[in-house]
Amino acid sequence: MTQAAPARFERERLIRFSHCDPAGIVFFPQYLVMFNQVVEDWFNEALDVPYAGMVAGRRIGLPIVRLECDFRAISRLGDRVTLGLAVERAGGRSLTLALECRAGDELRVASRQVLVFTSLETHRAIDIPPDVRAGLAAFTG
Amino acid sequence: MTQAAPARFERERLIRFSHCDPAGIVFFPQYLVMFNQVVEDWFNEALDVPYAGMVAGRRIGLPIVRLECDFRAISRLGDRVTLGLAVERAGGRSLTLALECRAGDELRVASRQVLVFTSLETHRAIDIPPDVRAGLAAFTG
Amino acid sequence: MTQAAPARFERERLIRFSHCDPAGIVFFPQYLVMFNQVVEDWFNEALDVPYAGMVAGRRIGLPIVRLECDFRAISRLGDRVTLGLAVERAGGRSLTLALECRAGDELRVASRQVLVFTSLETHRAIDIPPDVRAGLAAFTG
Amino acid sequence: MTQAAPARFERERLIRFSHCDPAGIVFFPQYLVMFNQVVEDWFNEALDVPYAGMVAGRRIGLPIVRLECDFRAISRLGDRVTLGLAVERAGGRSLTLALECRAGDELRVASRQVLVFTSLETHRAIDIPPDVRAGLAAFTG
Repeated sequence: MTQAAPARFERERLIRFSHCDPAGIVFFPQYLVMFNQVVEDWFNEALDVPYAGMVAGRRIGLPIVRLECDFRAISRLGDRVTLGLAVERAGGRSLTLALECRAGDELRVASRQVLVFTSLETHRAIDIPPDVRAGLAAFTG
Repeated sequence: MTQAAPARFERERLIRFSHCDPAGIVFFPQYLVMFNQVVEDWFNEALDVPYAGMVAGRRIGLPIVRLECDFRAISRLGDRVTLGLAVERAGGRSLTLALECRAGDELRVASRQVLVFTSLETHRAIDIPPDVRAGLAAFTG
Repeated sequence: MTQAAPARFERERLIRFSHCDPAGIVFFPQYLVMFNQVVEDWFNEALDVPYAGMVAGRRIGLPIVRLECDFRAISRLGDRVTLGLAVERAGGRSLTLALECRAGDELRVASRQVLVFTSLETHRAIDIPPDVRAGLAAFTG
Repeated sequence: MTQAAPARFERERLIRFSHCDPAGIVFFPQYLVMFNQVVEDWFNEALDVPYAGMVAGRRIGLPIVRLECDFRAISRLGDRVTLGLAVERAGGRSLTLALECRAGDELRVASRQVLVFTSLETHRAIDIPPDVRAGLAAFTG
């Protein structure tokens, strides 16, 4: 009996004028905004948990508690890049994600992020909601 | 003999977590970043003048000299909006654009922007480049 | 008997790397973020109405409904600019502000903004709060 | 004989409306923009190497190659925070900085960043410029 490999999630993005700095390359905090948007897309399109409903409706937040990034190569205005997301670990209340920005075979940025589910009323950690956990199954193998 | 109406350019966008403020609605400068990206898409996809090549390669800029915006209704996290662009006037060195953000029938933001072509070496106005002018024909009727 | 001229509010700012675009000049939405921060400072330091308490505590918002900007001259990384605010009109529920960015005698950006006080529960307009109105007296002459 | 401890650099900042997200707390990429501005201030005010002149004039960049952040506690609109910078290591072509955001005794964010000096013509690493190295002496002990 074989088991499917854990799924990955990917989205293409264009490097915009608004992402770039006076050096003509992506200003690094903009990569983090782009990764944040990929997490949003992953909830909406892969986990099937609408992100806006989770945050604004159910008042569940997903702040970051640990961030690591290696910036390996620069990206320039007009580059088409692929942003990829994989789940490294799903704990009781947190997710460890491996995020990447690639252009073709070239790895531009690699990031590990630990995100924690919280109540936006108390800003305290809560268990991963059941619908999120169900959606995670395909990504944890 | 009939003449085709001037073309419009439209793109759909999702209102992101990163666009919203502590009031849970779009922080207004983010609309201007979104409109800027639509102008970029319009160059790339409709005028057939690659925006990155124009700015980084040919060193031609397109700064704004006049901006007007009416903010009619709020947008919230998760809203799907349509950003529309029409050309009001193409002068010798400038473009007047009418930009809109709509959600269905509701007009959220209407903006008029005057953009001027400049040399990025001198930051002085230059004539609208011939390839841009050619692409504009469909939008000026 | 003479009457004092209406007061103005001014703050100096340094043009930052994070404000600038691939053309090496301020990306225009960043001027609007800077003007927004001057309004915040004006509430905190001149009107004596703590902005954070108004928004997060009293749940009163101050969205923009009308924006006009003339961009007269560029600003570059490292420029020291003066951001100025004057009240053009205080209505029942709205404020019309005249905002400027200058470097020495050179006017870089002039903006007129109409801001409306709203309830952040309903996003509907409300009367200018009494403490704000009291603080405005010095600015309306 | 005693030796002076390496110097630290600190600047106070107000948490702004524009820094905060729909959860009413700082959107994490904004911390990285704030840290970037502190590095800029440190060059201008402590190393005595004007940052704008280095980037725009001498065409020397300082991109990040490694970033680590621990987010320990949230910051809210209106909080006054202290951003601190210390040099962990000065190599031949790179700097390792320890950056912090504190509010009183509470550590909010701790970050380690490795920055590399580059030529903005080639985007290749270059030696730490002599004037920067001279300024660093007080910070490396």
